[in-house]
Order: sequence, then structure tokens, then C-alpha cells
Amino acid sequence: MTKPPGSLGVLEDVAAQLAGIAGNCPAPLPAPAAVAVFAADHGVHAQGVTPWPQEVTAQMVANFLAGGAVVNAFAAQLGADVVVVDVGVATPYAVEQTDRLLRRSVRPGTADLAVGPAMTLDEARRAVEVGIEVATALAADHGCLVSGDMGIANTTASAALICAFTGTPAPAATGRGTGVDDPTLARKVAVVERAVGRLPGRPGTPEEALATLAEVGGLEHAAIAGFVLGAAAARVPVLLDGVIAGSAALVAAALCPTALQYALAGHSSAEPGHAPALRALGLRPLLGLDLRLGEGTGALLALPLVASAARALQDVATFDSAGVTEKN
Amino acid sequence: MTKPPGSLGVLEDVAAQLAGIAGNCPAPLPAPAAVAVFAADHGVHAQGVTPWPQEVTAQMVANFLAGGAVVNAFAAQLGADVVVVDVGVATPYAVEQTDRLLRRSVRPGTADLAVGPAMTLDEARRAVEVGIEVATALAADHGCLVSGDMGIANTTASAALICAFTGTPAPAATGRGTGVDDPTLARKVAVVERAVGRLPGRPGTPEEALATLAEVGGLEHAAIAGFVLGAAAARVPVLLDGVIAGSAALVAAALCPTALQYALAGHSSAEPGHAPALRALGLRPLLGLDLRLGEGTGALLALPLVASAARALQDVATFDSAGVTEKN
Repeated sequence: MTKPPGSLGVLEDVAAQLAGIAGNCPAPLPAPAAVAVFAADHGVHAQGVTPWPQEVTAQMVANFLAGGAVVNAFAAQLGADVVVVDVGVATPYAVEQTDRLLRRSVRPGTADLAVGPAMTLDEARRAVEVGIEVATALAADHGCLVSGDMGIANTTASAALICAFTGTPAPAATGRGTGVDDPTLARKVAVVERAVGRLPGRPGTPEEALATLAEVGGLEHAAIAGFVLGAAAARVPVLLDGVIAGSAALVAAALCPTALQYALAGHSSAEPGHAPALRALGLRPLLGLDLRLGEGTGALLALPLVASAARALQDVATFDSAGVTEKN
Repeated sequence: MTKPPGSLGVLEDVAAQLAGIAGNCPAPLPAPAAVAVFAADHGVHAQGVTPWPQEVTAQMVANFLAGGAVVNAFAAQLGADVVVVDVGVATPYAVEQTDRLLRRSVRPGTADLAVGPAMTLDEARRAVEVGIEVATALAADHGCLVSGDMGIANTTASAALICAFTGTPAPAATGRGTGVDDPTLARKVAVVERAVGRLPGRPGTPEEALATLAEVGGLEHAAIAGFVLGAAAARVPVLLDGVIAGSAALVAAALCPTALQYALAGHSSAEPGHAPALRALGLRPLLGLDLRLGEGTGALLALPLVASAARALQDVATFDSAGVTEKN
């Protein structure tokens, strides 16, 4: 290629990873892309870990379907499809199932992880299977999958998963999410500490990973873990959003370590737990914009970088073909 | 908007800047975009500061016009136009002037800045005027301008400009460019030190800035400084590429400080001089991918971020209109 070796920096790694995923060089363009927004509620909301009312999860599902959210704006700008997957929204909402809204609720929100298991092992497994199913279906006609999430209070479950899987202390993994004040943050840290304290230790086997997920995770975390597994099984790259996806990817990696070879980290979230999660996963985030919105927005923004890396391998002339002299 | 305040991080600053530039909120989308690749040669090539032969500049001009370079691949992927502007290519090449190749050569490469002024004051002024002219013309039918550059040995002139305008010591501002070995890097640092040593001091007035540019700069640096001024005069955002654009923007800021309000830094280059240049300019780079290719590639990659920031302001529903409850 008519460029100095290494001069495309991180994008050279991305291009190599895409070629590895495709088993072909150059890899096909990662297009079209589909972002799956997994939505669910959290019993831990009862602990006052967020200033947002729980019904906002359902209201935002309606907003996604009306095209009014940031993920819709970014998807429109970047040419991606948006699919909403209800894996456990608590508040009823009046939107029918379509191909843009998959109603796959496992239960109407988790139980309160502050006081007991968030869900049963069977519920966790079913939520993972929803993610696998969605990835498999989308991979049939998409070249890139993008993870998204919506769930009021879901950064609490993410922090608990990150502590459980990486050994990070709760204060270092727990953040202000969508913007909580100091007393709320202190409550959130205490809740995470209490929940993680119930666990027998760092999960070492897939069975222990599933048990950890059931104890302190969320339904959308389980589904996104399955989404990563399903993308890998379909040999399609999957772009991860922020701290929710990062914590879910830790579950996926514990269930099947090689699945992460198909994953790229779209961005580094402003949430403090995201960095230790990415370190444990060995993923380098493509963007660092201090985003903390979720919905898949940070992953979507990285999509043009991934597409451009693939495009460079496809289009760029060689020194020979372009008649450009190589360096001495 | 249906998102927590601040949750779009840096993109909220970008959206506000775009609205300020447009004098309207929401700002129009920064589209279509045009990248102007300013190409020129450097007399300092004679000092052995790069392993690439000088004729590569002309060969790459032909490659840009044939669509075979990385900037072409990225522009195709991201929907931008590419215009090549010859402000001083040394080697003759057999491509006619078209609307995609503007032949505006001020002189066939600078003189060797290691031993004397790179160009005369009048040549520097004329190269700046080329940049203003190109920006003015492109702004007539483009919503975003993107700076690009091509010039074998041009990181040497960039390092000298950064030292001259920011006071950074030569070893901290001089890098390996497209990939030079240790002896070449040592020669490069010595050349930069010697050139900057001839200057009377940090430029304080526009006249002194132009004199500094003429003494140690390059023709494409001058043109890109003019490009930034022209974009500002036309009230169009201009996305800066790496260290060449960063050093040129220092010249533009010294000529007219308010012009930088129209500029965004696309990325942080792997070249060490770029960081002190951006600090002096007060610009935060949107991407950090360790790119060091030039051509406008890093700025182009940031274009979807800028467009998405604008798109969010245009499309996203309010809490009221979407029927979403605000936080307590």
C-alpha cells in the first residue's frame, strides 16, 4: 500500500482483525451495520441509585421506535439499522412487536441485587440465549453488529459485574452513570460492595460466570453477553459500546474466551469501571470522547473508523501499481 | 434533548462550536466536506532528514488524482471530495490542471531551511493567499473544509515552526515522521535546532509570524495557514489533520487569533510536536489513533463525529415531545 508502514496506527490492527474475522484479506466492508438496543429494568432501582424514574426505560423504548433518541440520530447519520430488544422492561408500553421491536422479555426487570440474586440461573441463561438469537438473525443480513443498551440503574449492575470479574474494588468501578450526586454515588458504591460480597469469589468456570451474572447482573447484560457470543459464532465483527457492554463482554469472555476475537471496543466511557473492564478484556477503545449515554451511541460513532480501515485495505494502491518510489 | 446533560461528552462542545460558527442552533450538517491536499517540496530534503526520495511528492500527487491513496479511500468511505493543490512540488509531473488539481505553485519547493530562509516573505504571503483562495472557493459549495498535506520532509519544517511558535525544545518537537532511524532523527533534530536558532525570538506580531514562516516553514504550511483563515472568513468549520496542520494553525493563530474559533483538531498525531502545538492552540483532538500518515486522513476520520454531533442537535427529541419523564 502507498503509505509508510504503521502510519495508520490503530487502524492497521483493526484492518488485520477484520481480515482475521473474515478469513480473507481484504475483509469485506462491515456493512450494513445493525445496532441492537437491549432494554431491561433493574430491581436495584428501589435502592435509590439513580435520580431517574424506572418508567423512563419503557418511555425510551417508545422514543427509540419513534426515532427520537440520540442512537437514532447517529444511526441515521452513519447508515445503521436500529433494532430494540425488550429482554425485561418493567413498565408496560403500548408498542406492538415488529421487526424493529423484538419482545423477548425474560421477566419484567430483575430482582433487587442489593438484597439477593438479580435473577435465577435459568433466567440468566434465557437472556443470554435472546442475545445469541438476535445476533444470529442480524448477522444473516448485516456485516457488523453493534451493541446498545437501555435500562435505568444498569450502571449499578455493570459495576457489580466488573468488580466480580476483575477484582476491582467497588469505589473504583462505580460511577455517576447518567449523573448522580454524592449521596447517591455513596449509596451505589455500598450496594455494589454488598452484592459482590455475597459472591464466592472470582468466577473461573462458565458455570460460575453464569451464576455471577444471575446474582449481580442485569437482563440486558446477559443478552449482550449472548450477542457477543452469537456474533462470534456467525463470524461477524461486533462493536461494543460503553460500560454496560464492557461488563457484559466480561461474562462472554468467561463463557467462551475466543469469542472476544470478534469484538472491538467502540469507545472508552466516562464511567470509571469501563477502563478496568477493557484492560481485562485486552481491548483498546477506538474513541475517547467522555461519552456516558449508552444506547450504542459510542459504538456507532466508531463504525466509520472500522469501515475506513476495511476500505483502505480494499482500495489503496500498491507502490508498484501507483508508480511511487519506496523509501531507501 | 432526551439524554442526560453532558452525556455526549466532547461532542456537546463540538455541537456548540458548530452552532456558534453557523450563528444558528441547530447548525447545518457539515456536508458536503472537501479535503484540500496541499502538496509541496522542501529544500531541507538535501540534509538527509528522510529516507524517501523527493520525487515521491509528485508521484503521490498523481496517486491522489488516480484515486489510489489512503485519503481517497477514506474520502470515498466518508463521502468527501478530494482536491489537490500544488503550491510547490519540485518534480515535474504530467497531469493537467482540472478542478481536482489546482496548479498554484509558488516556487518548485522551498530552499534548504537548514542553511537559510526557506522562502522569501513575498513567497510566504503568496502561498498563504493560495490557501485563502482555495478555502473561499470550496466554502461556496461545501459545509466543511478538511486540511490535507503531502510533502516529503515536511515534518522537519513543522517541527521548526512548532519550536518557533511555542518555545518547545527541538528534541521534544521533532519526530520520526514517516519512519526514520536514529541517526536520521538526530540529524533532523540538529537541523531544526540550527534553523530555529537563526530566529530573533518568539513571533509576537503578524509580521513576525510571516517572517518566521518564511524562514523555517514550508509552502504547504503557508497554504494551510491561509486555508484556516479562509475558512474562518467564509464562516465554515475547518477540520485540521495532524502535525503539519497543527504547525500551520499556529501561523494562522498568530496572523488572526479569532480564526481558530472555526477550527477543530481531527486527531492527535504520533508526531511528538503535535501535542504542544494543540496545547498552544487550545484545541482538543477528537481522535487518538496514533496515525502519522498525513494527506488529511486523520481529519477525515473525525468528520463523522462532527457530522453526528450536528445531527444529534437536529434530530433528537425533547423530553417533552417524546413523553419521557425527566430525572428527579
